[in-house]
Amino acid sequence: MALTDTNYADRIAQIRGLGYDAVIISGTDPHGSEYFAPRWKQVEWASGFTGEAGDLVVAQDHAGLWTDTRFFIQANQQLAGTGIELHKTRVPEEVPIPRWLAGHFQTKPVRVAFDGLCQSVGAVKELDDTLRGAYGIGGYDLIDRPDLLSSLWADRPEIPHSPIEWLDEKTTGETRKDKLAWLRDEMKQKGCDSMFLSALDEIAWLLNVRGSDIDYNPYIISFLLVTPQNAIWFVRNVSEVPEVPGIICADYGVLEDALEDRRDECGRLFIDPSTLNYHTYKLIRKFFAESEIVFGESPVVLRKAIKNKKEIEGFRRAFIEDGAALETFLYWLETSVKGGTHVTEWEASEKMTSLRSQIEGFRGNSFENISAYGANAALPHYCTQRENSPVIKPRGLYLIDTGGQFTFGTTDTTRTVPLGRCSRLEREDYTLVLKGMIDLTLAVFPSGTAGCQIDALARRPLWATRRNFGHGTGHGIGFYLGVHEGPQSIRQNFNAQPLLPGMISSNEPGIYREGKHGVRHENVLLCREEGKSEFGTFLSFETLTCCHIDTSILVKKLLNKAELDWVRAYNRVVYRMLKNRLAPEVAKWLKKKCR
Amino acid sequence: MALTDTNYADRIAQIRGLGYDAVIISGTDPHGSEYFAPRWKQVEWASGFTGEAGDLVVAQDHAGLWTDTRFFIQANQQLAGTGIELHKTRVPEEVPIPRWLAGHFQTKPVRVAFDGLCQSVGAVKELDDTLRGAYGIGGYDLIDRPDLLSSLWADRPEIPHSPIEWLDEKTTGETRKDKLAWLRDEMKQKGCDSMFLSALDEIAWLLNVRGSDIDYNPYIISFLLVTPQNAIWFVRNVSEVPEVPGIICADYGVLEDALEDRRDECGRLFIDPSTLNYHTYKLIRKFFAESEIVFGESPVVLRKAIKNKKEIEGFRRAFIEDGAALETFLYWLETSVKGGTHVTEWEASEKMTSLRSQIEGFRGNSFENISAYGANAALPHYCTQRENSPVIKPRGLYLIDTGGQFTFGTTDTTRTVPLGRCSRLEREDYTLVLKGMIDLTLAVFPSGTAGCQIDALARRPLWATRRNFGHGTGHGIGFYLGVHEGPQSIRQNFNAQPLLPGMISSNEPGIYREGKHGVRHENVLLCREEGKSEFGTFLSFETLTCCHIDTSILVKKLLNKAELDWVRAYNRVVYRMLKNRLAPEVAKWLKKKCR
Repeated sequence: MALTDTNYADRIAQIRGLGYDAVIISGTDPHGSEYFAPRWKQVEWASGFTGEAGDLVVAQDHAGLWTDTRFFIQANQQLAGTGIELHKTRVPEEVPIPRWLAGHFQTKPVRVAFDGLCQSVGAVKELDDTLRGAYGIGGYDLIDRPDLLSSLWADRPEIPHSPIEWLDEKTTGETRKDKLAWLRDEMKQKGCDSMFLSALDEIAWLLNVRGSDIDYNPYIISFLLVTPQNAIWFVRNVSEVPEVPGIICADYGVLEDALEDRRDECGRLFIDPSTLNYHTYKLIRKFFAESEIVFGESPVVLRKAIKNKKEIEGFRRAFIEDGAALETFLYWLETSVKGGTHVTEWEASEKMTSLRSQIEGFRGNSFENISAYGANAALPHYCTQRENSPVIKPRGLYLIDTGGQFTFGTTDTTRTVPLGRCSRLEREDYTLVLKGMIDLTLAVFPSGTAGCQIDALARRPLWATRRNFGHGTGHGIGFYLGVHEGPQSIRQNFNAQPLLPGMISSNEPGIYREGKHGVRHENVLLCREEGKSEFGTFLSFETLTCCHIDTSILVKKLLNKAELDWVRAYNRVVYRMLKNRLAPEVAKWLKKKCR
Repeated sequence: MALTDTNYADRIAQIRGLGYDAVIISGTDPHGSEYFAPRWKQVEWASGFTGEAGDLVVAQDHAGLWTDTRFFIQANQQLAGTGIELHKTRVPEEVPIPRWLAGHFQTKPVRVAFDGLCQSVGAVKELDDTLRGAYGIGGYDLIDRPDLLSSLWADRPEIPHSPIEWLDEKTTGETRKDKLAWLRDEMKQKGCDSMFLSALDEIAWLLNVRGSDIDYNPYIISFLLVTPQNAIWFVRNVSEVPEVPGIICADYGVLEDALEDRRDECGRLFIDPSTLNYHTYKLIRKFFAESEIVFGESPVVLRKAIKNKKEIEGFRRAFIEDGAALETFLYWLETSVKGGTHVTEWEASEKMTSLRSQIEGFRGNSFENISAYGANAALPHYCTQRENSPVIKPRGLYLIDTGGQFTFGTTDTTRTVPLGRCSRLEREDYTLVLKGMIDLTLAVFPSGTAGCQIDALARRPLWATRRNFGHGTGHGIGFYLGVHEGPQSIRQNFNAQPLLPGMISSNEPGIYREGKHGVRHENVLLCREEGKSEFGTFLSFETLTCCHIDTSILVKKLLNKAELDWVRAYNRVVYRMLKNRLAPEVAKWLKKKCR
């Protein structure tokens, strides 16, 4: 249980003191981000909950946190004593916030306040429809109060503004000029003239620009308006932004003026309602008629996911350089732990980061390291702490899930390694998870196949012995962008997006046994064309990750010949690619490991 | 190309003569059936197209047939010379009928006529919405003309009325009383009192009644109204229906009177808009306010798919008895063809039916036999003709897809058999399709898994060598009901319905090489609980089909040990189950085949 000095019950009381029937505090920022800057950690400020997904509702007689399966244990621990109740999402009996609000109040009108900067247009529309159905027109008020918590949150952090990094064509493979021309063409095809972009990864991709406004996510907090003639980038501290041709910089804070000035230049405006915030939408609606706005899914999402040659080249390099750091880490870990050195999970995590940070072009980790020993690895989202971090012992399994941001690509690798004697169950779990990872790696499938249609290939070896895991098998990975990106995924949930050549996805099955151990193996796969036949075009994967797989505890009879051949060939390639990049003692150690 | 005396262009002209801007002729009957009696083969009457799915639209300047991928070749052949154009459905560029109508006409109001008996409520609602969007209120007329074609179709067949067969509990495992009590309880849970049923298989299941109004489908054409007190069965020739407790029979033709009389008895009425026809819905709406009608998916669909113990027992028996007939057929075929006897595809098909018809409780085939030799088997829906039926030769592959209706179950089996020398490609295709069938058979999967999530298991062995097939892998099978039933399916298309213990589905991968050969292996699987673990409940399959698999042309190295073991064990079981049911020479032959 976490110890804390903060009195969250008191903060909930302060929110009630604002005088609404209900206040919604949402777990995102004005750009619909999955990860965001401390300024928008409003749910954490009000409730103490630190999970990466969660929304809070504070009514006068009830306070509730809505979060999904991944965070139930954490929420129960962190909410203890706050008086805030857990509302479970992604479960069959889920009651989403709009429906809960629709059923809770007796006295009309019901006054519901929210920070319109942190609610998407789509979410507010759904809320409005649901409340209208329950309370009727006039029976409720939706009150948009931007920065709602600022009056209560004394030391609320400012909006960050990190240095801006322009990437050139040599790195990205495509100029921002060409990308903007493509987008303008897309707009034409949709019968539009301009597009207003909110999603930070889309803007970063489109403008070939990066920053460090958000931990692990190399974005600049900004909006972008692309008109037939201009690209207007709304950004903080405009005067410090280095000039770049084709881009007009404007102040993040004066969106309204710019929209008024450029109203005629825009024509018909395209907007993605899943990322545009409600408050900004209202600003836009001051100057644009409803008929001049077209809602739809941003075409950048799919285009960005299909990597070009330069990006793929960069990814390959990133996985080789990162692989050398990982192998050095694994060598250090094994020799230290087996040699009797006192190493904690935290120290191991720090060591990994420090080795990676020596790579030229390193810009930070791509997510918080998961460094988990023994039973701790049974929590898929485990996070070790500097204080009292558990010691890694010379027996059983250690799991590290780690990745880096480099100017030439993004990495994400998980290795589970034996540090001494392992139980039969550990060995079997280790082998079967690997079998699942290999089976997906070796998949050949027809063009048009979606990730959810081949997810079972990674699970079949586990299912066969009544094992399974509760998370997705694969997520898309951005190019020096977010380590999680869509639109594709490889998981059981229905997602109609086909896997396409050039898409890069993780392949990370696992097994988690509470109180015992956890196993996950993760490689990253590039989707590519395999070939054609009279039955159509077929696709397959190329593995980008370059880090050996420990074969010492494999239960060989659980693998078939093709799977064993794959492991042997993979380790051979890893050694060949890395041997000249490693210190001699590490290379020697790796040679033995790869035999 | 089919030769025909009928002048379809003339029939289209007659339809135009009815004086509407467009006439829709739909390929179903008043019960939303997939297969239906000759009276409703209106599309065939008007166009000559005999495929099992197709709708016709006749405008003054255009006539079009809408059908899916399965029937493109057939439609192109049969529509040649009629002036009717093929509109493709289930393709990405599909323009469904409502959208086509919405875009075609210049002069308002657009007058669109259809036979409301053969259009579902759901379909008419969609049409209405689409046309309103295009032409505005008052810009179009939807004209319901029941039996629209009767004035043109001189010798139009009557509605059939076959003898009624009541099944008792010993066969069905559940009395109609208990089934009706269950349905009434379901209605209560939906806040309803009564249900009006249109789907013939649902009525047959609920009342434990069968007939032969439709080829291959043992149904009685009827409607059913279940009120809290009564079950009123609207059926043809009431006076001839044997009385049965708990069921009130009423005339199929006087629905309106009965609805008026029983209006108060009904209370809130539940209706499935996907099967209720529009014309009958209008009758209902005469007596029921909109607020008294609740639309939803019929609960019978899922309940009917989950077989009870008696039904499963009956299926087992059906597959054993049918298996003996199939083995006798295969013995006859092989010895005849290899012995130099002249056997045509048609004769083989007749022989199979005649052997099956000797089984006690036989009520007809469950679909039209597919008896296809050589390149003919490359057409998945091939249908041989009595005249000029191709001769089966002692080389290459012969495919038979056949099934029976018995009072105790329904069968559906495909075997592809070598009749002499086979090419390398035939042998490889034969082996890989079998590998796919076995891999799906051996699947273990968590409770909650849908068919589309494991379909890839049957395809992976084909995909690996860039092979594939264009149809689904598995469909549900009714108990002495339709050989195709939902709600589950095993195919690439998204279908969220999980596979549940007690569901019976086919497993029929294939490979089709135009002009060369076709391979399909089909067994039928019962879904059952496999066991529990700390990761949840797992399900698996039991094979019901009992007919050996020819191993003489297997390319053994393409199968792994588990797959080879499965074939050996399966053939051993088949021989053991059937040896005492076969003539001595057939049993001897089978023993050799199963070695």
